[in-house]
Amino acid sequence: MYYNELKNAIVYDRTKNPERTNATFERIEEVFENVLGNKGLKISKDIQKNIKNLKKRAPLENNQADEIIDYLKNIHLNPKDIKDITEQLNYSEISTNEAIEIHKKYKIPVSHLEKDIIPVMGKGCWIRDTKGKWYIDMDSNYSATNIGMSNPEVALGLFNQANLLISMKEDRVQIARTRFLKEISPMMPKGLNYFYWQNSGGEAIDKALKIAKAYTGTKDVIAFKNGFHGRTHGAVAVTWNEKYRKPFKLHKEDWVHFANYNDIDSVRKLVDKTGARIIILEMVQGEEGGNLPADSNFIKQLWELKEKKSLVIIDDEVQAGFGRTALKEGDWFACMSYNVVPDIMTIGKSFGGSYPVTAVVTNEKISDAMKPGYDGSTFGGNPMAMTSALIATRQMREKNITKNVVERSKQFFKGLEELKEKHSVIENIQGRGLMIAFSVGNKKNVEKIRENLKHKGIKTSLSTGEYVRFLPPTIINEGEVDEVLSRLDKTLARL
Amino acid sequence: MYYNELKNAIVYDRTKNPERTNATFERIEEVFENVLGNKGLKISKDIQKNIKNLKKRAPLENNQADEIIDYLKNIHLNPKDIKDITEQLNYSEISTNEAIEIHKKYKIPVSHLEKDIIPVMGKGCWIRDTKGKWYIDMDSNYSATNIGMSNPEVALGLFNQANLLISMKEDRVQIARTRFLKEISPMMPKGLNYFYWQNSGGEAIDKALKIAKAYTGTKDVIAFKNGFHGRTHGAVAVTWNEKYRKPFKLHKEDWVHFANYNDIDSVRKLVDKTGARIIILEMVQGEEGGNLPADSNFIKQLWELKEKKSLVIIDDEVQAGFGRTALKEGDWFACMSYNVVPDIMTIGKSFGGSYPVTAVVTNEKISDAMKPGYDGSTFGGNPMAMTSALIATRQMREKNITKNVVERSKQFFKGLEELKEKHSVIENIQGRGLMIAFSVGNKKNVEKIRENLKHKGIKTSLSTGEYVRFLPPTIINEGEVDEVLSRLDKTLARL
Repeated sequence: MYYNELKNAIVYDRTKNPERTNATFERIEEVFENVLGNKGLKISKDIQKNIKNLKKRAPLENNQADEIIDYLKNIHLNPKDIKDITEQLNYSEISTNEAIEIHKKYKIPVSHLEKDIIPVMGKGCWIRDTKGKWYIDMDSNYSATNIGMSNPEVALGLFNQANLLISMKEDRVQIARTRFLKEISPMMPKGLNYFYWQNSGGEAIDKALKIAKAYTGTKDVIAFKNGFHGRTHGAVAVTWNEKYRKPFKLHKEDWVHFANYNDIDSVRKLVDKTGARIIILEMVQGEEGGNLPADSNFIKQLWELKEKKSLVIIDDEVQAGFGRTALKEGDWFACMSYNVVPDIMTIGKSFGGSYPVTAVVTNEKISDAMKPGYDGSTFGGNPMAMTSALIATRQMREKNITKNVVERSKQFFKGLEELKEKHSVIENIQGRGLMIAFSVGNKKNVEKIRENLKHKGIKTSLSTGEYVRFLPPTIINEGEVDEVLSRLDKTLARL
Repeated sequence: MYYNELKNAIVYDRTKNPERTNATFERIEEVFENVLGNKGLKISKDIQKNIKNLKKRAPLENNQADEIIDYLKNIHLNPKDIKDITEQLNYSEISTNEAIEIHKKYKIPVSHLEKDIIPVMGKGCWIRDTKGKWYIDMDSNYSATNIGMSNPEVALGLFNQANLLISMKEDRVQIARTRFLKEISPMMPKGLNYFYWQNSGGEAIDKALKIAKAYTGTKDVIAFKNGFHGRTHGAVAVTWNEKYRKPFKLHKEDWVHFANYNDIDSVRKLVDKTGARIIILEMVQGEEGGNLPADSNFIKQLWELKEKKSLVIIDDEVQAGFGRTALKEGDWFACMSYNVVPDIMTIGKSFGGSYPVTAVVTNEKISDAMKPGYDGSTFGGNPMAMTSALIATRQMREKNITKNVVERSKQFFKGLEELKEKHSVIENIQGRGLMIAFSVGNKKNVEKIRENLKHKGIKTSLSTGEYVRFLPPTIINEGEVDEVLSRLDKTLARL
């Protein structure tokens, strides 16, 4: 029986696993070594001698798989090992080295190659890589896997929807979207009940800017230093880091003006100087700002300025939203903790249950400025996206995610303060909810700590500054936060 | 037994259908009428009297469902009717009217409201709406459902992947992407083997422009009149229709210049005048151009100009690609029919199996111009997207889609020529492969014909010009094309 399962992990059954291919011998070698160590290497060598015309990276043929299994039967491997080998082959039939080489060979290198951990499966906050090692994922794929690295209920919903109706463009009424609108609308800040569905955070920002421009009839936008909003022409133009704009000649856009974050005078001056009526900000600055929350007073003054000057404020909650930055139970969005309602909000990541779905949300008055033909989307709000979003959002409400964030956040910050007492390398601790960061003096320290944490089974978030960043899934539990703090303690002790 | 199934269609079982909610009484009324006509209306009225506190749009409770079923048992409905009622409730538990009202209530009205057909299920080229009526879908959701309105194999693949690992950001090596890269790379035009995965067509265009700008170190772009490329700041700036740009002040971008399509002199002049080195075009102009293919000679001259002036040509194949415009077997992309290879190509729709996944594809030299940090994406090339794409692409190759397109295209154009002889309203017939259009004098005729075709069970494509447009799924078979032509014949006869 064990051997039947192993055989199926080598020669895939398309009726059961259409997403797979046959295993390569290179992957089999790797898994033998993962599970059996040096003994595994020896077995691979022996088998290799027995199989003719073996190409290491070609999918194995049926008879080749049989020969491998015959060999294993002869040497009487113990069932536990066979089971482990089968499991790892089920997670991936392709070797780590081949995956890395193909990634390098075919990828436009727009971003830093991350090849240290190659996850093949995940459960809750945990992921397991091609080597069989487990990690706590404190990055959540930039908040895309807030409610877990896998999701059986979303899986089943998508299965049903793909069997029924797999796509429908955004202009046409459809049922999956109706269901989701009924679920999500009560969670929105007051009055923000008009949606335009998109596929990525950058796209939502780009369209939010278009909507604000159409409504105000103006073009100028005030954004903030250290803000990050995405990568399309529109989204990157309002993103502070000049490295993201200059190669594309998007660093001198006459319609974009950068103010100092948490500095109302700087905003006032720019409004007066440029006449800009559109403002875009994150309530908690993430990637570039080291998870820095806005001062309450700054937000209060900003909203006073908005009233006075009839500004349109776009609140980018793509990363901060859906409870990640909750200060109290029910704070689904960062703006709720500040007791303000923006004119336009962008939402994404979390609520899609990892499906690429985002949205621009606004009020009736601004929505009315958009006319049929002004925009359009093939995939925006398609039935698969809406199904995934319905199930994920329902799960977030049932799991009372905002309450969990409040509690885990307190636990995390308290633990970090204690570590700061013990380890002088920790300088400043900042963040909000489960967007958490601490500075460690310089970028070199950041990299050293990230690397050491990785060896201790903790995957952290990218950081462009001097901060080590944590964005754990919002479902993280008490024991897991303790585990992270304990591993961090050990890491810092040995620095 | 029939009644058990009906009960499950009213009160949903979350362990089986997590994507659903309980049926409303309004939907039950509608389905009774769909299946039983006037008798259905009478039954609804009677039942309504028996159930206390019935709110028409509230999800029915368990005991309310029981009362409905008891009533039906008493009047001895025939099993066929019960089966039909159950089926329609399984497709949607929400009424047509509620779906339309919620759509209107919560949607930023960026596009024309399409509420005439509300599809709830589909199979192959066919969709069925909330009323139970079947339509041949000659629109394919702008090419997003080229291989069918539902897809059991994609459904199973996504189910498996979501249970294993539901997301992974684009910078990290992962296995689902490795599998797909091995599948798709042999289909690409020669040398175009560097990919950057995105989520929508507009996003792919936006990033293609960024990559071209980074490579050339220049900003100016020549686009074409009647071209359509998408809606982000970057994509809409190079889209001709001023109505799509003006409300957002994107109609006077100093870096965009529009040339006449199929007019090499116009391109030459603009290159000389502006010094632009980047050109973006569709090989077959779709939505705005009435499915107009480029002249072979124009493409030849354009490529000569490219050599002479070191231009970078971006070929937008988001709609035309993956066989839709094939002239011969194996023409996976429109550029292959013209025997040219662009510098950058955008691909989308078809290959994702309806999952929102697109890409910028380029050659090694241009790829090298992009450096780590230049861009980034949360969802681009995530494992769910890659799984869906792997299965869809494998299906397209196995079904020999390009051969089918060539054959069905000939059949379609021949049939249209015959109809043109019979019906003088048809003026010009144009298109390529299964991007097909015919002009009928004016927009009013277009609307009349689209409306009449709809009554005959044919759903056509949106058109902003004087063309009736057909973009059938690329899997359409001989009998279905005959059926469409026959229904079109009858429609035109009664015009």
